[in-house]
Formats: sequence, C-alpha cells, structure tokens
Amino acid sequence: MKNLLSMKQITEKEITEILDLTSQFKKDGIQKLSQNIAVSNLFFEPSTRTKTSFEMAERKLGLEVIPFEAGFSSTLKGETLYDTIKTLEAIGLDAVVIRHPEDGYYEQLCDRTSLSIINAGDGSGQHPTQSLLDLFTIREEFGTFQGLNVLIAGDVDHSRVARSNAEALNKLGANVKFLCPPEWAGEFEAISNWDDVVEESDVVMLLRVQHERHDSKATYTSERYHELYGLTIEREAKMKKDAIIMHPAPVNRGVEIADSLIECNRSRIFKQVENGVYIRAAVLYTILNGRL
Amino acid sequence: MKNLLSMKQITEKEITEILDLTSQFKKDGIQKLSQNIAVSNLFFEPSTRTKTSFEMAERKLGLEVIPFEAGFSSTLKGETLYDTIKTLEAIGLDAVVIRHPEDGYYEQLCDRTSLSIINAGDGSGQHPTQSLLDLFTIREEFGTFQGLNVLIAGDVDHSRVARSNAEALNKLGANVKFLCPPEWAGEFEAISNWDDVVEESDVVMLLRVQHERHDSKATYTSERYHELYGLTIEREAKMKKDAIIMHPAPVNRGVEIADSLIECNRSRIFKQVENGVYIRAAVLYTILNGRL
Amino acid sequence: MKNLLSMKQITEKEITEILDLTSQFKKDGIQKLSQNIAVSNLFFEPSTRTKTSFEMAERKLGLEVIPFEAGFSSTLKGETLYDTIKTLEAIGLDAVVIRHPEDGYYEQLCDRTSLSIINAGDGSGQHPTQSLLDLFTIREEFGTFQGLNVLIAGDVDHSRVARSNAEALNKLGANVKFLCPPEWAGEFEAISNWDDVVEESDVVMLLRVQHERHDSKATYTSERYHELYGLTIEREAKMKKDAIIMHPAPVNRGVEIADSLIECNRSRIFKQVENGVYIRAAVLYTILNGRL
Repeated sequence: MKNLLSMKQITEKEITEILDLTSQFKKDGIQKLSQNIAVSNLFFEPSTRTKTSFEMAERKLGLEVIPFEAGFSSTLKGETLYDTIKTLEAIGLDAVVIRHPEDGYYEQLCDRTSLSIINAGDGSGQHPTQSLLDLFTIREEFGTFQGLNVLIAGDVDHSRVARSNAEALNKLGANVKFLCPPEWAGEFEAISNWDDVVEESDVVMLLRVQHERHDSKATYTSERYHELYGLTIEREAKMKKDAIIMHPAPVNRGVEIADSLIECNRSRIFKQVENGVYIRAAVLYTILNGRL
Repeated sequence: MKNLLSMKQITEKEITEILDLTSQFKKDGIQKLSQNIAVSNLFFEPSTRTKTSFEMAERKLGLEVIPFEAGFSSTLKGETLYDTIKTLEAIGLDAVVIRHPEDGYYEQLCDRTSLSIINAGDGSGQHPTQSLLDLFTIREEFGTFQGLNVLIAGDVDHSRVARSNAEALNKLGANVKFLCPPEWAGEFEAISNWDDVVEESDVVMLLRVQHERHDSKATYTSERYHELYGLTIEREAKMKKDAIIMHPAPVNRGVEIADSLIECNRSRIFKQVENGVYIRAAVLYTILNGRL
Repeated sequence: MKNLLSMKQITEKEITEILDLTSQFKKDGIQKLSQNIAVSNLFFEPSTRTKTSFEMAERKLGLEVIPFEAGFSSTLKGETLYDTIKTLEAIGLDAVVIRHPEDGYYEQLCDRTSLSIINAGDGSGQHPTQSLLDLFTIREEFGTFQGLNVLIAGDVDHSRVARSNAEALNKLGANVKFLCPPEWAGEFEAISNWDDVVEESDVVMLLRVQHERHDSKATYTSERYHELYGLTIEREAKMKKDAIIMHPAPVNRGVEIADSLIECNRSRIFKQVENGVYIRAAVLYTILNGRL
C-alpha cells in the first residue's frame, strides 16, 4: 500500500490486515521502524486529537517527525499544495499526513509524487484512519461485524466519518442506518425518529454538529436539536444491554449527546481516541515498512 | 507529588527538596528519565521563555515531547479544556504543562485525570515554576532565606509571580514588602515610595507592567511610571553592596527598570532564565519519576 | 566561523570549503554532531522550504531542535529581538536560525551574544544559505564558475537572492547580468529585453515576483508580466543546449516562468531544494563543530 486516501480504495482484506496489526501493537507494543524515515503532518484545518494521535504514533514508531505549521507556510504566499508536496519530497520526506478543507485534494497529487500520502480528512469527504479506528473499536467489542446494527446519527451530510464508515461497515457485513434532520440527509437515505431504531442498535455512532460547515444560520437551538435528534438520557435507557455509544469527537456536550452519557459505561468515546494511536501506527507501519 | 499547581499546595519540605535536586542537576547535569514518558506543552497564551525553558528541560530529561498548537487546536471548534485533557490522556500522554488565561483553570481538572498537570501560569493566579526559580536564584546567592528583605515592585495585583513568591518567601522566613502605585495594590498591603525601602532590601524583584491586562487606559506614561515607581539609576545607586535585582521578564526596558541596569552586575535577570531550565527539569523529574 | 550572516562576510575559500563539505555529505551521508547541541529556528516570516530544510538538516546532524513559534511568542508582548536572543542563550541554546523582515536585523545582535546566528533571510537583504545552495547547484552542473554567463531575471530590487548571488558569483568568476522591468531595477544595472541575453546564458535564474513587498498596486497583470519579462516557452526554446533554469521558489506559475517549464529537463528547481538540505547541514556543521 503506497497511500491511504479513502475507505473506497482499500479492500476488505487490507482492512482486516490493518486491524490485526493494530491488535498486535495494542497487545505487544508498537514496533519501531527507522529514524531514517521522515514524515510530516500537514494540517490545513485545526485539529487536536487526530494530529496529536498521529504525532504520538509516529514517535512510537521511532520516525523523524519534521514540524509543519500550515498557518505560517508558503501557502500564505500563494504556493499550491502540489508545489508544497514536491518541495517536501525534494527535502527528503518519505510520507505526509494531510488534513485539507478541499474534498479529494489528493486526487491531483497522489500519482505525481513519490511521497506516501495518508489522508487525515478532506473537506466533507473521507477520513479513513477515523473509520479504521471506529471499525477496530467495534471489532474489539463484538468480535465481528456480521449482522451488527449500526446507527449513525447526526450531521450526516457534512460528515467525513459517515461516508467512510458506512462504506466500510456495509462491506464487512453490518447493517447501517442513518438518522438526522430530514433537511440534513443530503445524498443519504435517513430516518429522523429515534423510536424506530434505538432498541435494535448494537452501536450508536453519533456525529458532531459541524456549526462551522453550515452555511446558513443553524435552524435548531442546541436544546431543540438535542430533544429531537440527540442521544438523550431517555433514549439511552432504551438501548440494548450490550450496545455501545461512539462519537468521533470533539463532542458538543448536551447537543448530540447528553452531557452525563459521555463517560457512561456504554461510552467508547475515549477508548476510540486510545485506539486511534494504534490504528495510525499500524497504517504508517504498513505503508512505510514497504518503503525500506 | 502528582501535580504542581500552586505554591500554596507544596510544603516547605517539598520546596527544599526541589531546590536541592535543582542544585544537583546544575552541578552534575540533568539526569535522564525515559523516552517512554510523553509530555506536551499546552500554552493558551503567548510565551517565549517559559515554553522554551520547559521544552529544553524535557529534552534534557530525554522525554518524548508531543507538539500542541493551542491556536490551531479543537479549542477553536469549542472543545472544553477538560475534553482536550481527557483526549491527551487517552492518547497516552503522561503529563501536560499548561498556561491558560483563566484563574484556577486546573481546579476543575486535576482530580478527573490521571495526567500530571504542571501549571505554567493561570491568569492572574499562580506560576509556581517561576516562583521556584526565583527562590533558587535567591538561595544560590545568599545561601538562606531567613531574615532576607525582599521588595516586590510593580504591577502587583495583576501578577502571578507576586502572589506565588510572597507566599513562599514568607513561609521560608524572608520579609516581603510590596511597592506599587496605590491604585494597583489590589488585595496587597503596599507602599509607594522607594525611599522607604531601597537601602534595606537584599533583593529587589521587579514585575512587568502588564499592559495587556489593564482594562482601562494606562494612567501612566512609560516615563512617568519609571520616574515614580521604576528602578532608576539613582535608586540602584542607593542599594546595599550585595543586593541583587531580579525580574521575571519579558522586561519593558526603561519602564520597570532603567535600560542600562538590565545587564548590570547586580542583575540576575538572565541568571533566572538559566536557572529556570534546571528548576523545570527538577519539577518534571520529581513528578514523573514517581510514575515509572 | 561563528555566524553566517551575509555572503559579503565570507571569503571565496570559505565558500569553497562549504561547497566541498556539501558534496561530501551528499555522497556519503550527513555526518552526526551531538545531541547535546541545541538549536532553534526563529522564523518571523512564513516559510515552507527554508524552515523545513533547516529542520531536516538539523535532525540529520542529530541536533536537539527546540521549537519556537514566532507568532505566539513574547514578541507579542513587545519583547525585543535582542532580549529574545539573550533569553535563548540563557536557556542553553547553541545556535539560532533566524528569518526576520528587518534588513540587517543581525547587526545589533551578533557581537552581543555567544549564540551562533545563521541568517535565513533578512527583509530585502541577504539569504546566504540560498545563495550557497544556488552556487552548489551551478557547480554540480558545470564543475566551475569561471566564465559562466548567469542571468538573474525578475524582481531584482526586492530580492535577497539577487544581492547575495550576484556578489558571490562575481567573486567566483562568473558574469552576472540582471533582467527586469526598468522601474524595478533599483540600485542594479539591468536590461529589460530577453532577446539580448537568452542565447548566451548558461544559467537562467528566475526570481519570484514578491507581490507582498510591492507597496503600490502591481503595474502588471500576471499575463502581461509573463509576456514581457517571464521565461516563456518561446524564450526557453532559444536557450543553449546545456543551459539550466533555476528558481528559489515558491514559484508563481505562469508569471515568472511558464507552467510547463517548471519540471522540464532544464529545470533544476526541485534539485535546488534537495541540495538545500545538504548545504544547510554543511553550514551548521562548519559553525557548530567549532563549538564542541
């Protein structure tokens, strides 16, 4: 595997291999690669958990991490992303992790550089390492995807996570449903009533309301959104005994999910973050081990 | 010690132990901890010397330092400090150094995370590693605190340093006096005339006029402030033979202190910066050694 | 050599020694210095390639690199560059790489600090490591400078590179000509017609149009500038068989140079970037090896 750009690109077999390597890293520790491999994290949008998670994974792998401040780079002088990437290639990097606001930014790049590209989120497109860590967290819990009922609830149309996860989960045998305000469904077929699905779901995967991506004024107050489309305490009480709650975070507390549920027994929200480091290490290992 | 939050929290015995370890590090070099310990520096306010000083101390200790850009983090998407901290805990960090504009920000955090927190300044509250390095610099000079006359002069009410230092110095047996414009004294009992104290002081500790924290327009020009409340060349000439000048920096040259005094013989201003690295190494060592 | 501030400062012999060490590093790998040497990169202007290039060189040398965010430092509280440098000296750094908007910022610093200073660009002044990598790229190509015809074309007056390169190339025996719009020539003697020179040049060194440094509105559209003063496809066709194209980048595609020429056979643009890492390693090695 040279790049990881989209969940559409990778096969079920490749997914399983990455999840297996992740399990091994989580059990036995992350295996070192070489300090002669240099990578950089190019985040053109703010991020705490994804960026820090990659940074941690890279250091556990023993890589050389070259800092890059997108907000203080030649991009400000009008340099294209292509020229930035070719520059980093010439400087001697082996791989770049990129988050960029433009959907599919990587399409114009990936065949024109010898650098490996790991997509850490493209606009409203894909966020494959988030999908993989979600898959890992589900498999860790249930041992399988076959026949699992997964509900993805929230800002479906603006979500990189919804797209990536739905595709992968369907491939792997799960049944995915979407829940959101009718006017937010976009290309997705979605329901808008929790009563229809809360009792049957094994996994309730909430999405962040992305205030910053809604062009018009939000049509819901936080209270109203929570009441209609959030995971309330009442809804959580109807969930199956072993069902779990997931959220890619950051969470809008009291909007997508009741504040008191974030660290409840069913919640795997911080477990997802923990698993993220191992997933990213496994992805980087898989890609970079082939370069040595 | 799990955290270092405030000078109020630590005992005289703990202070002495940290100062002793600092002496040892300064004499024999900083002892390495393990690269398996990961820390991050979360500075939500601009800083050069404190942040760089911690970075240097962390590297001399051999720690893994995970970068964090506060100005480009999920805080911009409305994430709370609590959620940021829980995220970093899940990612596998061991400790965080935090500077934050909110007084006592750590009170809502420290019992809810397994991370160690080192407070690098909270609003107008505490700045314990600055206090410790000030104490170290004084002890290095005089060998004791007992009976020393310490004058803290300047923007007393807005100063984290004034609070932390006064408490600690009093505990350790020094006599602390404050000097400032009467309307800036806040909760402190302060004099406003240098003539009363300049000849008796062993330590003159100047504070920065914090233009950025004065809500109303400053009521003094730089020249007028210097003339009335700054350490002028004339006042310095009246100081005791072995008395020293300290300032936590950054300095407003010609305001708190005459420009030509900043690097004069009595000045320990850059010595304080040098000692800061050893103090921070000793604090991190004390806290993290216990975690291994 | 304690500092590298300007091409005016270094002798022909020193240039040759640095180029020779660069050749050796490129052939045999970059030799490690010690992790006990700590450096920091102080970029007060945006940069991708120069900053990343220094970061990479520093890590290949095995140095400790202390991060510094100019946009989030005490400079915002009005601290002078001198005080920042003295602080970093006290913290224990050995060298700083500085890019700063003020011409000759280093003149007030270099004799007042024990830190080594490597100038990575001062306003419209000098950018000596860029000059050295340009020289290295030319020598790598032609084996000599003697009698080479070098054309420097573009925003001559605002260019750090033009100044540094012209001085050095003349010293080393090359014939340098300038080409630019007549009103942009500043102190330089320049032609403004490609026909006079394109056929005789061994090296065509293009400069970026620095939109951000032109005070008044640019008097040329991109198309018009390209037509009159850019390296068009037609002009490239008239170049000598073995002549090469250089550009310090970032490139304004279609302005200084036709888009399709950037990665053409004659272009050494990304080769320059690659060589930059070796040059910076050689400069740092030369300066820091002397400090051990």
